[in-house]
Amino acid sequence: MTGLIVQKYGGTSVGTIERIQNVARRIAEVQKTGKEVMVVVSAMAGETDKLLRMAREISDRPERREIDLLLSSGERISAALLTIALNALGCPAVSMTGRQIGLVTDNSHTRARIKHINATRAKQLIEEGHVVVVAGFQGISEKGDVTTLGRGGSDTSAVAVAVAMGAELCEIYTDVDGVYTTDPNMVADARKLDVVYYEEMLEMASLGAKVLQIRCVEVAKKYKMPLVVRSSYNNEEGTLICEENPSMERPLVSGIMYQKNQSKVTLRGVPDEPGIAAGIFDALAEAAISVDMIIQNVSAEGHADISFTLDTDHLQEALEVMKKTAHQFKPENLISDSNISKISIVGEGMRSHSGIAARMFRTLSDENINILMISTSEIRVSCIIDSKYTELAVRALHDAFDMKTAPAEANGPAQKKSP
Amino acid sequence: MTGLIVQKYGGTSVGTIERIQNVARRIAEVQKTGKEVMVVVSAMAGETDKLLRMAREISDRPERREIDLLLSSGERISAALLTIALNALGCPAVSMTGRQIGLVTDNSHTRARIKHINATRAKQLIEEGHVVVVAGFQGISEKGDVTTLGRGGSDTSAVAVAVAMGAELCEIYTDVDGVYTTDPNMVADARKLDVVYYEEMLEMASLGAKVLQIRCVEVAKKYKMPLVVRSSYNNEEGTLICEENPSMERPLVSGIMYQKNQSKVTLRGVPDEPGIAAGIFDALAEAAISVDMIIQNVSAEGHADISFTLDTDHLQEALEVMKKTAHQFKPENLISDSNISKISIVGEGMRSHSGIAARMFRTLSDENINILMISTSEIRVSCIIDSKYTELAVRALHDAFDMKTAPAEANGPAQKKSP
Repeated sequence: MTGLIVQKYGGTSVGTIERIQNVARRIAEVQKTGKEVMVVVSAMAGETDKLLRMAREISDRPERREIDLLLSSGERISAALLTIALNALGCPAVSMTGRQIGLVTDNSHTRARIKHINATRAKQLIEEGHVVVVAGFQGISEKGDVTTLGRGGSDTSAVAVAVAMGAELCEIYTDVDGVYTTDPNMVADARKLDVVYYEEMLEMASLGAKVLQIRCVEVAKKYKMPLVVRSSYNNEEGTLICEENPSMERPLVSGIMYQKNQSKVTLRGVPDEPGIAAGIFDALAEAAISVDMIIQNVSAEGHADISFTLDTDHLQEALEVMKKTAHQFKPENLISDSNISKISIVGEGMRSHSGIAARMFRTLSDENINILMISTSEIRVSCIIDSKYTELAVRALHDAFDMKTAPAEANGPAQKKSP
Repeated sequence: MTGLIVQKYGGTSVGTIERIQNVARRIAEVQKTGKEVMVVVSAMAGETDKLLRMAREISDRPERREIDLLLSSGERISAALLTIALNALGCPAVSMTGRQIGLVTDNSHTRARIKHINATRAKQLIEEGHVVVVAGFQGISEKGDVTTLGRGGSDTSAVAVAVAMGAELCEIYTDVDGVYTTDPNMVADARKLDVVYYEEMLEMASLGAKVLQIRCVEVAKKYKMPLVVRSSYNNEEGTLICEENPSMERPLVSGIMYQKNQSKVTLRGVPDEPGIAAGIFDALAEAAISVDMIIQNVSAEGHADISFTLDTDHLQEALEVMKKTAHQFKPENLISDSNISKISIVGEGMRSHSGIAARMFRTLSDENINILMISTSEIRVSCIIDSKYTELAVRALHDAFDMKTAPAEANGPAQKKSP
């Protein structure tokens, strides 16, 4: 359906009756222009937490299958209310649950993965002139049980539905205007990006950008579904997330991310033998502790130092695991530091331009910020620094890469358009 | 499943987390005795009203299909929470929605009728030792849309599920101890009945007894499913609603019902011609106004008086309809009285005993209560009286038919048991 737009509205956008009515007006206006519209909604803000709280009041370990039935009610309520609001405006609309949209998942309750979508009935309803309002976040397993897609599941629903419907675009409406070069609360001249490539968005999401969930971006990238992130409170253009386009003018660095609340653990003098590192990280994985960066230095005497970083929330637990596992170390060989931050620069421009990492290191060095650890991907450089320098580092990098203004050119003067 | 008991819990019985936990304890105790148990739940008290209020805030005429999706969430939430509570007590339980229990209805949204139930999966879960917790009130249409069964729908779900499962009994847990001879708030020595026959219960329900909805009793009667109405707050026996049993000792009159808030409309001097009455009541039916009793007296001069009664809530509307329809009458020929009550006695005993109606009329006459209209069925006599005599009439009849004590005999001394 080439003219179809899928719009997803988050919990705050449908958090009150009045907001639901605002969203309905916005949708009705788009439909009036002749566009076909499909809508995916989250539960009204606070509803999911309220339901979870009740379940936890009853049981420390509520069954995941029952949690799915419980939580899926939230999106059904907002879908029904938005559909009623659309019809009240004279815009013909029909609600559909996860099952009715044919969203079939595996059996992993509370974090199900989409297997396929059979959108035949939705297509028919759209062709008949309806706006179809889909309850997000939920599907149905092949056994016929209600499943939910986990955190940010409604975004993933929206992209998957857009793919299944052959939509031209999937718009994610939220409470921010789009994706920014960095946190506007930290850097006053942070700039909203017009375009971000899937790969960049994946890096940003994995670095803690909350505007889009990583799974939603993965699905969009896989099926090349263009995403737009924009605010449901105004008519700003938002940020387009799409495939790489080499002819497009691009900045070298698109975004600067920071993560506070990081910790570093160092094991000194580990015997430099096969299997030692594996033993340490197996034990952490078994305890379900996610480790971020890992660095190993081999020293001269056949011993090595191993350092890794992780969320400070899991530091204590990690140290316990280390003490149990690494019998061979004396306690003084186990060192931790919970005052570190991770600063990252992300940009597709890094693929074709060298020297960007060097410019980052130079910028930090010019500010007398010591780099404790470094890790890189093709389109990302991350540095661990003392957390007290976080703001300073982010602002200095934002300036150094000239991010407050949109790039006039990225691929050299040859491609510069005549004015 | 001959050992299976279906229990239905109403909205107040699951109105808070604490009450849900109480209900779970009650169910777990029954299961411990080796009984198989299936549970049907209503939405938590107040939930349905809250959802309806939101819909009405958005639209004067919310679509019935959307209302069904909206309201069905309430029972899903309570089913999930009760299931979590049962598992937390170590009682293995699984929730099922209307769809999962295979409850298929017609397409009449907000008042759907059950077509069939396919309980294969529920039977298997019960055989595996689970308590199955069913979200009441809801089903699924053959089109795959969520439907609800209308007022009291969870009671009807429970009975229909009990029939489909071949249960031995369906228990309806509510906030009263059972069915009483009459309103205990009006008559201090009103007595809880141990047994009420289906036919009696149908009459009582149609006369405004709120303890059971008429559809639920109809289904129970059709499939001879024994019902027990009892309180979820204590362990009292409750009232059994079952098939007539001629050998059982029965009172002549089982219940005395009253309905205040009734009105009488009289059309005087209507031409005594075919089609006149039809015209009047067609017009009322078109306006969706339910009429209760109708009486027509033919006068000597080829004119008739027609009287009917109805709920006072619909009186003004009915008078408007009459004025539009019955052009031939002068206004003074249209008389209404909104100060009347309907008093009814109900009992299977009337089938085999004559003189019961006469005893009712005599009792009212002894109290100087004038009877304005009379209507009867095989097991019911109803009288319209001035509403100020309602309490007096109910108490006098309760005494006259000796209803405060359980009958020692009903079929004559020959069957009296020896002490």
